[in-house]
Amino acid sequence: MQNRQIAVAELPTGTLTEANFALEKAIMPTPKDNEVLLRTILMSIDAANRSWMQGATYRAAVKAGDAMPTYSICEVVESKSDRFSAGDIVATESVWADYVVCPARQLQKLPDMAPLSNLMSVYGIAGKTAFHGLVGVGKPIAGETVLVSAAAGSVGGYVGQIAKALGCRVVGIAGGPDKCASVVQDLGFDACVDYQDPGLFKALKAACPNGVDIYFDNVGGKVLETALFHMNERGRVVCCGAISQYDTNNATGPRNLPGLVVVKRLRMEGFIVMDFADQDATALRALKHWVSTGQIKVQEDIVEGLENAPSALIGLLAGRNRGKLMVRVSADPS
Amino acid sequence: MQNRQIAVAELPTGTLTEANFALEKAIMPTPKDNEVLLRTILMSIDAANRSWMQGATYRAAVKAGDAMPTYSICEVVESKSDRFSAGDIVATESVWADYVVCPARQLQKLPDMAPLSNLMSVYGIAGKTAFHGLVGVGKPIAGETVLVSAAAGSVGGYVGQIAKALGCRVVGIAGGPDKCASVVQDLGFDACVDYQDPGLFKALKAACPNGVDIYFDNVGGKVLETALFHMNERGRVVCCGAISQYDTNNATGPRNLPGLVVVKRLRMEGFIVMDFADQDATALRALKHWVSTGQIKVQEDIVEGLENAPSALIGLLAGRNRGKLMVRVSADPS
Repeated sequence: MQNRQIAVAELPTGTLTEANFALEKAIMPTPKDNEVLLRTILMSIDAANRSWMQGATYRAAVKAGDAMPTYSICEVVESKSDRFSAGDIVATESVWADYVVCPARQLQKLPDMAPLSNLMSVYGIAGKTAFHGLVGVGKPIAGETVLVSAAAGSVGGYVGQIAKALGCRVVGIAGGPDKCASVVQDLGFDACVDYQDPGLFKALKAACPNGVDIYFDNVGGKVLETALFHMNERGRVVCCGAISQYDTNNATGPRNLPGLVVVKRLRMEGFIVMDFADQDATALRALKHWVSTGQIKVQEDIVEGLENAPSALIGLLAGRNRGKLMVRVSADPS
Repeated sequence: MQNRQIAVAELPTGTLTEANFALEKAIMPTPKDNEVLLRTILMSIDAANRSWMQGATYRAAVKAGDAMPTYSICEVVESKSDRFSAGDIVATESVWADYVVCPARQLQKLPDMAPLSNLMSVYGIAGKTAFHGLVGVGKPIAGETVLVSAAAGSVGGYVGQIAKALGCRVVGIAGGPDKCASVVQDLGFDACVDYQDPGLFKALKAACPNGVDIYFDNVGGKVLETALFHMNERGRVVCCGAISQYDTNNATGPRNLPGLVVVKRLRMEGFIVMDFADQDATALRALKHWVSTGQIKVQEDIVEGLENAPSALIGLLAGRNRGKLMVRVSADPS
């Protein structure tokens, strides 16, 4: 058995490139007491991966030479813990590698489900982030207008579909006419505007004739600035991410902050999916219901092969994915 | 009887100057049915006056040629309404003038209190804004650290004193060593840092060894950006004003927004004092209690003469006031 890993060769100073990574042969690790050897099946590719390379966030910063961190779904190959057995499927904080050894205490046992990719998308962090951010932070009420950026992305697509199921008017923001068309046709949004359009301000106004009650912000920057102008009094801005600010050294702040927050009495609130872990069962029950009724469609964008993880992340930052992006490192257990 | 008013001669395009205003003779107005003639006693001078000159906010924009709007305390001279009698003391949205006629429905009858200036400061908008913003939006808990900008200003001084009374560690931000010393010595803050100090970041860190749980923001801009770096997880930013952004055409947004809101799960929330009108009686009871115990000291900065209103507002924007700034146009009734 061979092992490979992808390390951060050099931290990016601007736009991420393949040269920032190095695919390396690695030793096959051996578990000690209370550890398990894992075979990586799927790795989640997220904008947050890039933000970890900018400094400490809710986790320690990634340094040059480190194996690239990731959230993974794995199969237990060998266990030195009485809590896990070979063949168990688990989720864990891990690294970009074929095989890893992890302490048993950091593993979360997953239910048996086919395909496992659904545990990365609608029943995983993407779906739970969308649910907890929209429902727990945004608190939508039927009839309100919900605006979502990165609407063709993993979280944004679920946000819009959940908001629709809750009786809201739903408007997406995405990059380019193809993605915008797909957000409306495939995901059922009421409208979707193109952030690359120089007429974004007017397009948003036309798409949100009653203003915006909840803006679910995945991007920050200029799009946030523009969205703030369209917020209604007492609107809520759910701060989920700032993807426009991660892959640059020239982050700019919205010039209407904090002015419009005062004038319109807005609430801007950040959250991390783990903050709502006590509500996960409720979220999963609701998501399963909406999948069963067809109100949520599951979009997954699966890239094959560990070696393609860097290009997958670079593509995500450039907006090239549709739905939840992940890398398949090995097959689901049959 | 003569009347005078101060009009906006020309809207400012940058820093406000005396040339933006014109003192004019005005006709003595006559009340019609359901109107009253008012003698202006005190006019509130607020940073918000300047923001009204930048465009529509929670009220219509001020235009060139308009008499300058203000919040005033007045005595009823002549009433064509059965709700008011000559001699009543009222608060109203008004203009910079010796006499005005207002619709009776927009007047609020004030209690008999000497001096009336207290109804502009601790028992007026300043004290109520401080109470509602800190208690209703910030929700402090004893032991937390509360940071307040414009701490030598009308609202900021009360915020800090209320937070102290509630058992918090209180740190102010003010302009220049004299104001900072006064905030500590006269108002009892635990510390006060100078925003003009190039070492603001380190000074804040030293003054807030346990980080900041609530930042009561009156200023926006660079000070907000710096404060955000010191916020604790789940911190609250009470967005009360953005005085640094009003008197300029080069407003800049904090570059760490919305990134830090996500990472630290912050809540930033704006409010207007009127939003909490249903809690005004509670606020006044608490403020009177703390004044009676000496936990709140009342600072008032009263400029004499209608004609000095422009220089008073210009001075406020330059940070030259201590405590609640108002212009006395005529004497309290004896």
